[in-house]
Amino acid sequence: MNSLPPISERDMRRATLCQLLHWLAIDRVQPQVLADTYLQAIERIDAQLNCYVDVRGSLVQEQARTASKRRRDGVIGRLDGIPVAIKDNFDVAGWPTRAGLPGRLVPAEDDAHTVARLRASGSVLLGKTNMDEGALGAVTDNPHFGATHNPWKHGYSAGGSSGGAAAAVAAGLAVAAVGSDSLGSIRIPASYCGVFALKPTHGEISARGLVPAARRLDAVGLLARGVDDLTVLLQVLAGYDADDARSRRRRVAFDLPDWEPGRLRAGLLPDLAAVGVAPDVIAVFDTAMTKLPRELGERRTVDFSDWDFARTRRAGLLLMEAEMLGTFAADLADTAHPVSPRFRHMLDYAAHKSAGDYANADRVLDAATLKMRRLFSQVDVLVLPTTPQGAFPLDGPVPDSIADLTSFASLAGCPAVSIPMGTLPDGLPIGLQLVGARGSDLRLLELAGIVAATLDAEPSYPAIA
Amino acid sequence: MNSLPPISERDMRRATLCQLLHWLAIDRVQPQVLADTYLQAIERIDAQLNCYVDVRGSLVQEQARTASKRRRDGVIGRLDGIPVAIKDNFDVAGWPTRAGLPGRLVPAEDDAHTVARLRASGSVLLGKTNMDEGALGAVTDNPHFGATHNPWKHGYSAGGSSGGAAAAVAAGLAVAAVGSDSLGSIRIPASYCGVFALKPTHGEISARGLVPAARRLDAVGLLARGVDDLTVLLQVLAGYDADDARSRRRRVAFDLPDWEPGRLRAGLLPDLAAVGVAPDVIAVFDTAMTKLPRELGERRTVDFSDWDFARTRRAGLLLMEAEMLGTFAADLADTAHPVSPRFRHMLDYAAHKSAGDYANADRVLDAATLKMRRLFSQVDVLVLPTTPQGAFPLDGPVPDSIADLTSFASLAGCPAVSIPMGTLPDGLPIGLQLVGARGSDLRLLELAGIVAATLDAEPSYPAIA
Repeated sequence: MNSLPPISERDMRRATLCQLLHWLAIDRVQPQVLADTYLQAIERIDAQLNCYVDVRGSLVQEQARTASKRRRDGVIGRLDGIPVAIKDNFDVAGWPTRAGLPGRLVPAEDDAHTVARLRASGSVLLGKTNMDEGALGAVTDNPHFGATHNPWKHGYSAGGSSGGAAAAVAAGLAVAAVGSDSLGSIRIPASYCGVFALKPTHGEISARGLVPAARRLDAVGLLARGVDDLTVLLQVLAGYDADDARSRRRRVAFDLPDWEPGRLRAGLLPDLAAVGVAPDVIAVFDTAMTKLPRELGERRTVDFSDWDFARTRRAGLLLMEAEMLGTFAADLADTAHPVSPRFRHMLDYAAHKSAGDYANADRVLDAATLKMRRLFSQVDVLVLPTTPQGAFPLDGPVPDSIADLTSFASLAGCPAVSIPMGTLPDGLPIGLQLVGARGSDLRLLELAGIVAATLDAEPSYPAIA
Repeated sequence: MNSLPPISERDMRRATLCQLLHWLAIDRVQPQVLADTYLQAIERIDAQLNCYVDVRGSLVQEQARTASKRRRDGVIGRLDGIPVAIKDNFDVAGWPTRAGLPGRLVPAEDDAHTVARLRASGSVLLGKTNMDEGALGAVTDNPHFGATHNPWKHGYSAGGSSGGAAAAVAAGLAVAAVGSDSLGSIRIPASYCGVFALKPTHGEISARGLVPAARRLDAVGLLARGVDDLTVLLQVLAGYDADDARSRRRRVAFDLPDWEPGRLRAGLLPDLAAVGVAPDVIAVFDTAMTKLPRELGERRTVDFSDWDFARTRRAGLLLMEAEMLGTFAADLADTAHPVSPRFRHMLDYAAHKSAGDYANADRVLDAATLKMRRLFSQVDVLVLPTTPQGAFPLDGPVPDSIADLTSFASLAGCPAVSIPMGTLPDGLPIGLQLVGARGSDLRLLELAGIVAATLDAEPSYPAIA
C-alpha cells in the first residue's frame, strides 16, 4: 500500500505534533505504533529523567486501539492518535490528582475541562507528569516523587513547576503536554528544557478541574516542539466555559486583524543586567536579536524602572500561598502523609499574613494590568529572555529570580510564548519570551512562528531524545 | 416668547431628569432658574435632613451661568443644566474627598472619571453628599458629619452608605445623584427613600477617582426619580476606561437584542420569610406581584437553599475591611482626626484575619458568579424586594440583614435595579429589585420601566419635597 520507508523511532519522537498529524493522515504512522513507541521510550528512558509519576500502559494501548478504529471508520478528531502528557494537577477521571503532594490518593470523578477536550479530540493520554509540591516552586525537585532531571544535562533542574511535562516533551517522551502556569510554571521549564510554550490570556482555556493555585493567576499552559503545535492545541482547548467563574468570554472573533506588515513595534528592556539577567543569557539574547533584523519591526525601549521585581514576586507568591491554605487544608492536616517542611513553612507564612496584606498584594495585580495596558499602547509585543538564567544544578542553590521575567504577564493576565533562542556555554538551552496584550494569543503565536523559523533553522535535540 | 405659565418650584423639584431635559429644551425652565431653585431648597430644607456635607453656592451659580451661555450658543451636552449631587467618596477637583472620614482635608487634584463625564455632559454639580464612615455601613449615621434623616420620616435612617445622595433625590434637593455600591450602598437607600437606582454590571462605569472599598465589588451607582433617568445617566457614564484596571470592555454592542416579547422568565424566591424578609415587606411585594400579571412573563421559583446569607455577608465585609486597611492607612494613623471606634474596630477585625481567610472570602465571589450564571440560564431576571425591611429608627438597633438581598448581585458582578414598589404600614417606601445577568443593564432598565409604569401609576412624594 504505502511504499515509503517506515518512520524511525527517533524521528517519531522528535517530530512536531503537526508533522505527526500529517504522517497519521497519510498512514505513514499508525496510532498504535506511535503509542507503543512513546510507551517503550518512557519505559527505557524515564528512570533517568523521572518525568512521569503515573503511566498506565494498558490504558494507553486501549486509547490507541480506539484511535486506530476511528481512523479506519474515517471519523477522527483534531488531534486523533497524538500522545500527550498531563501535569499531575489536572483531574483525569479514575486517576488520583496528586498535585505533587503525598496523600491525595482518591481517584478524580471527572476529567478536567482540558482533559475532556483532549479526549474529545482523540488524543492519547500517556500519563501524568511530575511537578513541584503543590505547584509552589519552579524546580521540580519533589520531596515525595523525586526530582525531574533536565534532558540536556543530568543533575540539572528541568525548571518548574511543570518540569516533568517540559522534560517529557524535550526528551521525546510525549509529543506535547498540558500544564499550569501561575507565575511562569510553563514557560520556565520550557526555557530550561528547550521546548515551546504558550501561557494563554487569563481565562482563555477553562481551568475547571485544575487544582487551583491562585485563581486570578492560574492559566492552563501548553508545551510542544513547535509553534504551530501550540496553535493547534490552543484551538482545541480554548473557549468559554460557563462552569468556570474565571473563564473569559471573547469580545471579538479569535482571529484578530493582523499586525500591519512591517509596522510591528517590539518593546525591549533597556538594561537586562539591571533586572538580574545573567551575562551568558544576555549574550544569547543579543545574538538572537541580531539574527532578527526585520522580523521584530521597529524596536522601542520600554521603561521598567517603576517595576519592583522583589515586591511583585512576594505579592504573587502570597496570593498562591494564601489560596493554597484553603485548597490544601486536608493535605496539611493529613498526618499519615505529611507535606514537606518547606511547603508547610511557605503556607504558614501566608497564615501569618493578614487579610490586609492579601488585599495589598492583590492590588499589585491591578497595577500590573495598568502597566501592561499602557505598555501595549506603545508597542505590540514585549521581547525578553524567558528566564534570567539557564537551568541550575539540582544540588545547588535555587535562584530567587527564576520567575521575575515571566510573572508580570501572569499578574496582568497577558499571553506569553516561550521559544528556544539558543544555547548557553554549558550546553543548556534558554528561551526567548514574547508577551502580548490580552486576547492577542493568535497574533503572538504567528509572530513566534516567524521568529522561531529564523532562530531555529537547525533544530537541536538533547542526546537522550 | 414663551406663553406657557412658568414651572412651579415644587414641580421643578419633583420632575424627573427627562422631564427637566424637555423643559430646558423648550426653554420653559432655564439652567440658572433650576440651579437657584435647588440651591434655595437645599438652604431651606437640608438642615432638617443633612443630605449634603459640602455645597458651594457660587460655584453652582457659575456652572449654571455657563450652561445658560452654552444654551444660547446652541452647543449643549447630554445633561446640560441638570443639577446633580455626588457622594463624597468621588474626587471633585479642588474639593476634599472625605469619604465620611474626619481628616481627609486635602483637595483632590483631578475629577473622578464619573465627575469628569458629568461635567462634560453639562450637568451642574450641586455638592457632595453624606455617607457612612468610609462607606462601611448602610445607615448614613456618620460620627463626624451627623446622620442623614429619611425624607419620609424624621429620625429614621435613609439607608446607606449613599444615604445623603438618595435622600437628596427623594426630597427634591437634587435631580439625580451618583454614588457607589459595593454590597448594596446605592440600592438600600433607594429602597428606604423611595427613589430609583441602578447598580450597573461590574466595571461598566469606570471607578477611577472613587475611593476604593473592595475593587472586585465596587460599582458606580445611579440614583434618580425615574427609570428613564437612569438609562440616560448610564449612557453618559458607561464605557471602557483604559486607566481603570477593573473597567469592563463590552463584548457586544450595548443595545442587546430584546427579550422575546411574552417569553420573559422571571425568577422568584420560594419563601421570602425564610430568608429574613419582614412580613410587611412581603405583603407589599405580594401586592406588587398581583399588579404585574403579564409584565414579568412566566414566573419560576429559583432555589436559594444553597445560599448562606450570613457567610456571604461576612465574606463581602471582610474584602471591604481588608482593602480599607490599605486605602485608609493614613486615616487610621491620623491622631489629630481620629476615626470612630466602630470603624477602627471593624478594620482591626480584618487586620487579625489571615491572608488565607481573605482568599476563602474571595472564593465566595467565584461561587456567587457561578450561581448567578446558572440561575440566568433558567430565568431572565430575578425579582425580589431590595431590602428585607423598611427604614428603621436612627436611635434603634441596626438590622444585620440590610444588605442580604442586594449583596449577591455585587458578589457576582450583575446589574440590579431598584424601583419603589409601595408603602409600608408606617408610611415608609420600600423597593423592588430586578437583577439580571452581567451586561444586561439596558434590558433590565427597559423591563424596570415597564414594571415601574404599572406600579407607580400615582407617584407619591415625601411631604418635604
